[in-house]
Amino acid sequence: MPVLVMKFGGTSVATLDRIRRAAKRVGVEVAKGYDVIVIVSAMAGETNKLVGYVDETSPLYDAREYDAVVSSGENVTAGLMALTLQEMDVPARSWQGWQVPLQTTSGHSAARILDIPTDNITRKFGEGMRVAVVAGFQGISPEGRITTLGRGGSDTTAVAFAAAFQAERCDIYTDVDGVYTTDPRICEKARKLDRIAFEEMLELASLGAKVLQTRSVELAMRYKVRLRVLSSFEEQSDHAGTLVCDEEEIMESKVVAGVAHSRDEAKMTLLSVADRPGIAATIFSALSEANVNVDMIVQNISEEGRTDMTFSCPTDQVARAEVALSDIKEKGILNFAELVADTNVCKVSVVGIGMRSQSGVAAKMFKVLADEGINIKVITTSEIKISVLVDRKYMELAVQALHDAFELDQAS
Amino acid sequence: MPVLVMKFGGTSVATLDRIRRAAKRVGVEVAKGYDVIVIVSAMAGETNKLVGYVDETSPLYDAREYDAVVSSGENVTAGLMALTLQEMDVPARSWQGWQVPLQTTSGHSAARILDIPTDNITRKFGEGMRVAVVAGFQGISPEGRITTLGRGGSDTTAVAFAAAFQAERCDIYTDVDGVYTTDPRICEKARKLDRIAFEEMLELASLGAKVLQTRSVELAMRYKVRLRVLSSFEEQSDHAGTLVCDEEEIMESKVVAGVAHSRDEAKMTLLSVADRPGIAATIFSALSEANVNVDMIVQNISEEGRTDMTFSCPTDQVARAEVALSDIKEKGILNFAELVADTNVCKVSVVGIGMRSQSGVAAKMFKVLADEGINIKVITTSEIKISVLVDRKYMELAVQALHDAFELDQAS
Repeated sequence: MPVLVMKFGGTSVATLDRIRRAAKRVGVEVAKGYDVIVIVSAMAGETNKLVGYVDETSPLYDAREYDAVVSSGENVTAGLMALTLQEMDVPARSWQGWQVPLQTTSGHSAARILDIPTDNITRKFGEGMRVAVVAGFQGISPEGRITTLGRGGSDTTAVAFAAAFQAERCDIYTDVDGVYTTDPRICEKARKLDRIAFEEMLELASLGAKVLQTRSVELAMRYKVRLRVLSSFEEQSDHAGTLVCDEEEIMESKVVAGVAHSRDEAKMTLLSVADRPGIAATIFSALSEANVNVDMIVQNISEEGRTDMTFSCPTDQVARAEVALSDIKEKGILNFAELVADTNVCKVSVVGIGMRSQSGVAAKMFKVLADEGINIKVITTSEIKISVLVDRKYMELAVQALHDAFELDQAS
Repeated sequence: MPVLVMKFGGTSVATLDRIRRAAKRVGVEVAKGYDVIVIVSAMAGETNKLVGYVDETSPLYDAREYDAVVSSGENVTAGLMALTLQEMDVPARSWQGWQVPLQTTSGHSAARILDIPTDNITRKFGEGMRVAVVAGFQGISPEGRITTLGRGGSDTTAVAFAAAFQAERCDIYTDVDGVYTTDPRICEKARKLDRIAFEEMLELASLGAKVLQTRSVELAMRYKVRLRVLSSFEEQSDHAGTLVCDEEEIMESKVVAGVAHSRDEAKMTLLSVADRPGIAATIFSALSEANVNVDMIVQNISEEGRTDMTFSCPTDQVARAEVALSDIKEKGILNFAELVADTNVCKVSVVGIGMRSQSGVAAKMFKVLADEGINIKVITTSEIKISVLVDRKYMELAVQALHDAFELDQAS
């Protein structure tokens, strides 16, 4: 029988009632003839409670013990989901990570999946079991210790199971009903996409459309796992949600798939830096060591062998960046005239795989913004994305204008 | 290095502060030179919460899933305890049941321990680890599923580890500071015993002195594990608590070690039952099938080939017993004149291994009760115990009088 992977996040299993509702959806897929692998998160709030215990106990904790403690929330949900399915007369059992065993690296709290043997679960499917409920987010290290996969670990678990079992699809049930052309809260014309390409989803995710964890989308792209994002709180049809898939599955896609934005950006400029080889490495090594997540980087030639270097980072890392850069200035490692931080900016991006084959997208974007009187402060581009920093007060205007201009409110 | 097993129950690890206090005690034993195996229960309330989830999800639950869910509470405590010890610079790590692996039968929710391999933990001790924190109450079945040991499972885990590792002692930290000659709430002269023999502890436990689970005491007796019961809420000396040990370790013991009582007893009498072979088997098979826990049984010869049969059982099982016996009467399997239930009785017992070698204890007990004007309704005796049923209103008087008469307030 074809295998389907279904993943339910913390809010979708927050109470016994919600677990029951999720189990009913599983039952529907079983009735269609699928053998189903269900990946569950901990009940909402549980993981935070456990992390709180660990943090309070040991601020610099042993990650192996952290993993042993924090993974227990998923085990509870897995057992309860299996029991709920059994109550519905669906043959089901739970698996904890070590029982599969889902083998990972020893990188505790951020382990990477090495292998998922399929024989054990496949044999049970052959014996009439219809649903394997697997505790997400966890595995076992080569040393036999429990590991966790870090942020987004349950999504990653689901995609990895879908790849290992060559599942027909991996359905991610969450609290939104799909991926939108832009944030519906700031643009009422935002439209749910039926399909989106992996690459577009990756750009949208890292730009703030936090529907799926980047890591799980990367994995899905590598193994060509068809991912569907859909809401656990609405009635579902077969075409519900958004399918994240290979671009070949998307017919006649628009040039631009969506407009993303990020409010939490700061623009920092180092004025009059000596323009010599290695200077960028010096600056960004120092920032990296200070755990500053640099996003955009732009270098302008200035005068007389000196240059201005501009970068963006999350607003709450500005202070850290300032300390790191002052530090290397004092030590004589880097010479610059001034560091100017502008925490009053935002980032707006247009994303679409169609850009690869169609020119003029950047020109159109800049013209749309100019027509609205919005000044662009920084520009960066990638193959399928163009991002600009603008004053924060223009964020909604910019998003709405771009959404209109690229006709994202209309299905292609 | 000698091995010590220390077990902390749910109330002793109910909060992070209490876990810290427990860890400090562990640190004291490590400083004395012990390699310590710590067995932990779930934080107080956690197991009940999980059991509640399971009951609500599936009244007739799959015990394998029940075990998978319910065992997670101990895993959390084990990790937190290991972290707390590490914070105190005590080299420690946690083990879940399957990691040891603590091998059990497949009798889910009431599994019995088959084996505890020691090589893994012993090797870690050899490498400098000083404390192995083990999640109590759980193991792994031959099929690789998680099992739990049922009521008192953590005490049993502790004793089994002490036996497997030939530990010098097994310290059970609980919310009482030891075993008393009688219940201090009804006899203010009650005295804490320094030592008590396994057999005495067994009789006291089953009589209602619920300090240690019967099963763990049986196991300790079989493997000669020295058990110490002590409070986690008081400062400890080396002689704190009560040592439960082989009678050979108890010098000059008193004839009577303690006076136990049970308020929750009912006396039931079947009047005028045909006195023929097999009649007792008929009665008590029917009661057993109805899940009535019969305690005392007394048969009196009455007249003309008929007899009266008296037994005691918990008061909340009286209705069940009445139904079961009426049922076999109606079916013509058993003939009796009347069933008389007296739910206004209590059981008082004196316990002591000294009785085996000293006569006159029963006579003295009966005289003490007679002197107080207390009528005895039923008597049963074992090698080291004499129990009587008396009217409930006399319970405190009987206990106090016996405690005085056998001079239990004075150390031997």
